[in-house]
Amino acid sequence: MNKPLKLGVAGLGTVGAGVLSLLRDNASLITARAGRSFEVVAVSARDRTRDRGVDLSGLRWHEDAVALAADPEVEVVVELMGGSEGPARQLVEAALAAGKPVVTANKALLATHGGALAKLAEAKGVALAYEAAVAGGIPAIKALREGLAGNRISRVAGILNGTCNYILTEMRLKGLPFAEVLAEAQRLGYAEADPAFDIEGVDAAHKLAILAALAFGQQVDLAALHIEGITNISALDIALAGELGYRIKLLGIASREEGGVTARVHPCMVPVSSPVASVDGVFNAVLAEGDAVGRIVLQGRGAGAGPTASAVVADLVDIARGCQSPVWGVGTEALAPSTPVPMERHRGAYYLRLMVLDQPGVIADVTGVLRDMSISLESMLQRGRAPGEAVPVVMVTHECEEAQMQAALKRIAELSSVVEQPALIRIETL
Amino acid sequence: MNKPLKLGVAGLGTVGAGVLSLLRDNASLITARAGRSFEVVAVSARDRTRDRGVDLSGLRWHEDAVALAADPEVEVVVELMGGSEGPARQLVEAALAAGKPVVTANKALLATHGGALAKLAEAKGVALAYEAAVAGGIPAIKALREGLAGNRISRVAGILNGTCNYILTEMRLKGLPFAEVLAEAQRLGYAEADPAFDIEGVDAAHKLAILAALAFGQQVDLAALHIEGITNISALDIALAGELGYRIKLLGIASREEGGVTARVHPCMVPVSSPVASVDGVFNAVLAEGDAVGRIVLQGRGAGAGPTASAVVADLVDIARGCQSPVWGVGTEALAPSTPVPMERHRGAYYLRLMVLDQPGVIADVTGVLRDMSISLESMLQRGRAPGEAVPVVMVTHECEEAQMQAALKRIAELSSVVEQPALIRIETL
Repeated sequence: MNKPLKLGVAGLGTVGAGVLSLLRDNASLITARAGRSFEVVAVSARDRTRDRGVDLSGLRWHEDAVALAADPEVEVVVELMGGSEGPARQLVEAALAAGKPVVTANKALLATHGGALAKLAEAKGVALAYEAAVAGGIPAIKALREGLAGNRISRVAGILNGTCNYILTEMRLKGLPFAEVLAEAQRLGYAEADPAFDIEGVDAAHKLAILAALAFGQQVDLAALHIEGITNISALDIALAGELGYRIKLLGIASREEGGVTARVHPCMVPVSSPVASVDGVFNAVLAEGDAVGRIVLQGRGAGAGPTASAVVADLVDIARGCQSPVWGVGTEALAPSTPVPMERHRGAYYLRLMVLDQPGVIADVTGVLRDMSISLESMLQRGRAPGEAVPVVMVTHECEEAQMQAALKRIAELSSVVEQPALIRIETL
Repeated sequence: MNKPLKLGVAGLGTVGAGVLSLLRDNASLITARAGRSFEVVAVSARDRTRDRGVDLSGLRWHEDAVALAADPEVEVVVELMGGSEGPARQLVEAALAAGKPVVTANKALLATHGGALAKLAEAKGVALAYEAAVAGGIPAIKALREGLAGNRISRVAGILNGTCNYILTEMRLKGLPFAEVLAEAQRLGYAEADPAFDIEGVDAAHKLAILAALAFGQQVDLAALHIEGITNISALDIALAGELGYRIKLLGIASREEGGVTARVHPCMVPVSSPVASVDGVFNAVLAEGDAVGRIVLQGRGAGAGPTASAVVADLVDIARGCQSPVWGVGTEALAPSTPVPMERHRGAYYLRLMVLDQPGVIADVTGVLRDMSISLESMLQRGRAPGEAVPVVMVTHECEEAQMQAALKRIAELSSVVEQPALIRIETL
């Protein structure tokens, strides 16, 4: 048996403690698969006194996480602190610069500095592995980078944020409004005290930026993404979506179009028959389409100690076995520049839900705006009558351009008979 | 750039031609990902004159496939002939013995001789890669062997035969009998002229034997599998399953139980909410449950030139990059012996559908047998009345042991009021 591979672990929150536990609980199994054992020799975390439910005795403690990179005994650095700047970034840079492989779950770091870090890793000939950064325990990075290596990928998409998916699922199942379900999710630990990062789509955008770079062999370009969260999704729209045969999901979608790549995170209506429609609760899904393989869909738990630790250990086993792929699937010199297609040029069908005063001529006004913008309707749904009061009207359009739709939306919102901001949700036929 | 990796390809049917096409069509992409290019230098197939839609000029042609192993220019052998014996086996053995890595799509070979071949590959220190042998383009082998390397796997299961899944899907959608749909599938090329291998569950069993060995780190043991096909599935049972909230799928399921591993291929009723219930047509799905990751489900096309070529190329890229895992996930010395749990000891719920004469006392007779065998009923469905004629009666049991159920089935079939062989389908809550 080869000698142990010695690890330094930075960050001992839920995930860090989960990695230590998993390496211990399944030690003999993991050793057999990796061809050598793993030994955590040093750790770093903010609070030395907190009980993490895992024995830290015998491990060297670094007050400064960055010192792990310089610890002569540490051969591989596992970064589980998070954050695109500060100590996480410094540690990863220092470790790579010192020629030490890095395993990280840090999507913000990779989405923001993935290009420079890949160059550094490549220059030093060491691995920068990040299976845990996207879709938790689902081996989505490995599938894209290695499993589909023969394919020209045309689209990658997914349910990439478990918090949002949990909230949308609960809203649907219980018919409750967003704020109420969010509060419950916070009580249950499925949403952070400050949930903005999740519910505004930023976390999903980090993950999509990573998937897009890998799928299309291009520079990571977080700034090119169109990002909308789920804060404006109402229980009414979720119910109406159901009536129309759809589910509302927060999706990240990156696709190769004429002229470049579109990458966007926003709520979508997907047909109930779509393989992502039934992925509920905290589960994630990643879908990829390749020219040879067709469509594959992977689903599983997107977060949590166990699934994330599973992904971290998978990366460690690859490193122990000497399996190393380029950070973004191809060498950094071969990466194409990012060629974002602006959201205004997105084409698709739309769900438009208005609250209108129930009075003669309203529908004619609204449909007149759509006609003027050359947007044709596939269907319209008006339910209930309440003369003089506001009632919902739903319109589903045929495919049109985002710019047209936004212009129409602006004019419709200004109509005197339209009493609140209309809801616009893009329809995706994944 | 490194020098090309030179390949010898045996078998130029749909898949072989697909591999050649994919290597050519996506050559620059694949080269960038693999870090070197691939060059097919030699091929072998039965019929030299057939037009395969792919240019073979400049390739050395071996009449005898086994000669590819000895071809000094061939560095990696790609075996796409199929069959557990004969030239496929001889070629793989000869290539490994010559220290050449082998990529194969041959599930029959691996399920039958996987143990000995792994020892040979290990002794020579070369790869024996078989992503294409299971679930076509879905990177299921890579996911189990590498992506879930940190997990103790408790169950692996899936829809592993696209022909059967296509037939069951069509029977459901069109309400047609098995024979009629099979004939149509043969016309469309979704089923072989001799379909026995697929419809009797043997192909799925080969794949399950492979998945089980990999998931549980144990000797491949095809003989330990319980195998039933779909030839007795009736349109009536498919319709009744739908009424009860189930779909009928041919599943392969291997799970770790007290005392060993159960591995079985048979038609199952799965709840419509199961992630495998909506995997229809020629699509495959692979489900795995690990102690850290929880449940992951992968779905995609299980056969065809493109998906299979995608898997073959993924294996080639791994080899080009020097990524090599043990054939069965751990070294052959570490493989546990197979410890099959016999099917009689399987526990589960059952769907039992009888055709009984519509006369007094019949239900009492049948339920009396079940009571005598300590099998309790969850529900019973009797529909339609036709005094003196045969009507269907459906019973869904609570969990019981297979041996009990089979004994009860035998006695029920012997009742004079039961007019044809009862249908028994196991219920799985995947």
